[in-house]
Amino acid sequence: MASSILSDCSTARLLPLRRALLQQRVPCIRPCPALASPRRLFAAARPQLLPRPPRMDSVPAAASSAESADASAKVIDGKLVAKQVREEIAVEVTKMRDAIGIVPGLAVILVGSRKDSQTYVRNKKKACEAVGIKSYEVNLPEDSSEEEVIRHIASFNSDPSVHGILVQLPLPRHMNDENILNAVSIEKDVDGFHPLNIGRLAMQGRDPFFVPCTPKGCMELLHRYGVEIKGKRAVVIGRSNIVGMPAALLLQKANATVSIVHSQTKNPEEITRQADIVIAAVGVANLVRGNWIKPGAAIIDVGINPVDDPESPRGYRLVGDVCYEEASKVAGAITPVPGGVGPMTIAMLLSNTLESAKRIHKFK
Amino acid sequence: MASSILSDCSTARLLPLRRALLQQRVPCIRPCPALASPRRLFAAARPQLLPRPPRMDSVPAAASSAESADASAKVIDGKLVAKQVREEIAVEVTKMRDAIGIVPGLAVILVGSRKDSQTYVRNKKKACEAVGIKSYEVNLPEDSSEEEVIRHIASFNSDPSVHGILVQLPLPRHMNDENILNAVSIEKDVDGFHPLNIGRLAMQGRDPFFVPCTPKGCMELLHRYGVEIKGKRAVVIGRSNIVGMPAALLLQKANATVSIVHSQTKNPEEITRQADIVIAAVGVANLVRGNWIKPGAAIIDVGINPVDDPESPRGYRLVGDVCYEEASKVAGAITPVPGGVGPMTIAMLLSNTLESAKRIHKFK
Repeated sequence: MASSILSDCSTARLLPLRRALLQQRVPCIRPCPALASPRRLFAAARPQLLPRPPRMDSVPAAASSAESADASAKVIDGKLVAKQVREEIAVEVTKMRDAIGIVPGLAVILVGSRKDSQTYVRNKKKACEAVGIKSYEVNLPEDSSEEEVIRHIASFNSDPSVHGILVQLPLPRHMNDENILNAVSIEKDVDGFHPLNIGRLAMQGRDPFFVPCTPKGCMELLHRYGVEIKGKRAVVIGRSNIVGMPAALLLQKANATVSIVHSQTKNPEEITRQADIVIAAVGVANLVRGNWIKPGAAIIDVGINPVDDPESPRGYRLVGDVCYEEASKVAGAITPVPGGVGPMTIAMLLSNTLESAKRIHKFK
Repeated sequence: MASSILSDCSTARLLPLRRALLQQRVPCIRPCPALASPRRLFAAARPQLLPRPPRMDSVPAAASSAESADASAKVIDGKLVAKQVREEIAVEVTKMRDAIGIVPGLAVILVGSRKDSQTYVRNKKKACEAVGIKSYEVNLPEDSSEEEVIRHIASFNSDPSVHGILVQLPLPRHMNDENILNAVSIEKDVDGFHPLNIGRLAMQGRDPFFVPCTPKGCMELLHRYGVEIKGKRAVVIGRSNIVGMPAALLLQKANATVSIVHSQTKNPEEITRQADIVIAAVGVANLVRGNWIKPGAAIIDVGINPVDDPESPRGYRLVGDVCYEEASKVAGAITPVPGGVGPMTIAMLLSNTLESAKRIHKFK
């Protein structure tokens, strides 16, 4: 069963990084409690998936005492924040409709019949309906040509009732993601994956048209829980185009001092331990242990990794990139998995769609 | 006299960061030797320009012993490397001309009559001629309109003998830099400042059309001096759109673990001291002291700051962002100022112009 991260389209792109990290085969001296269930078939079958061993001797003194006192981090409740955000969006959508008669519209293009993609698209549609955003859907067969997909994108590009366009990833193998994603008009690219958008995100004095949904959700959680960012040390673990990299750019735009930890980083735990804010988006179950965390740090865990669990009715359960049980004793605040960043991604997609409609129709 | 960095067009953009750093007014306990000349009018007139004091007690042991032994870093000779690069480009230009009859062309647009800008443009023209690149120049009066400048850009965009277009910065105040720079065709944007280009630089699996010249020069120096980058800790000081930010993206693309230090960073010396590679591009004379440097680190100093010097015939001399005298005793390798990154910027502009001509004419 593959690890993945919450942004549903990311699995394929994260695999090389995940593979590289897993090649750091370190024997597991003390397993992460979250993985130490008696019938953990997953770990038994894939010993290399075991996380790095904790080095308790190198945990800062404050962390040890925090751990011994069994201190508990504030839980950053993504489900609750996402609900608030959706309610705020619903109010805005109604206001806009009443004032200028325009309803924001989101178009989703799904190619093929992957069950997971169908579920994601269904969820997005439901979420749109719940806040009053109109959703449009095109389902194309697996063997469609790139040209067909691009034709549909072009049609949505010129459709004034559509303010956001989303191509559900992954696309079938015979298609070139770049060609297809580049066909989405920059003004309607609510995913924010276009390089022009990323460039504007990276530059001082420029603003992106859209902030990619998952990193935007991470920032929203930090803001809503009053986590100060300016002048703080931040570490982003993972540098994917859709989460890690844009998250690092956002933290920097908010004036944090940012370091990016990735598969080639030699001492990730040491660097992570310096951070007041950690965003983990690497797709490796329980990689970040308690002794990686600076006492009091805010931890945003983007990972959502299924690990086999025969005791669960589904045969597996979901864990993050951070060993929650250990980290929550050291951190000041932490997102759970599930229920942390996950619900925020769709909420931010709705937020981007509303933002787009407002911009296109100059509604404030 | 204003500080600036080597990329001649950067002064205006760097000022806010410089100002912020200078606001960290720390009394100078032991002045940097490079600034401690008896008749240093500059420092006397502007006491806030004094660099932060060294904290010798916190210099790593190895650094202290290196200093006491008066160890000397290898000098990274930018003048020499730039000469080599220009010679290589000249060979390539000749090859191309002989094979397909095409000569790379660079167009420079200068608006107004700033003396420094005129000098830069003249130098670029000379450098082009020396390697066989054809240069085109347009001089427009200070009071030209944005539309006039854009019209000239459009004409060069469609001119097949022009492969690179450069708008000399700073532009007159009544013009919007963004509008003008965005008018340059992405295929001819040899400066590499376009956000689409920066986005492609930031993304994994994408390549920029052009790497911005000064950061490209920094990387070329590291490569030619055999400095290993993959897996190393790198710190970039400064996050300007034209040097710091793209330099950080390049280091990350080369698999370093990168941290960016800027005006809001609380402990820049502590973070810098962890780095195997430092790129300083902040425009503050001698900011980086010997005790900021990890023993053996490679230091690329992009700063070129004039400090008053009545003993010099010009009344001033140039120093970098790094206190060379101190740092060269601790570092493993270091660029001097002048003669380090400076000569590389124009060499990389020629390299980008050649690259563009090769790409447009599919010449390998």
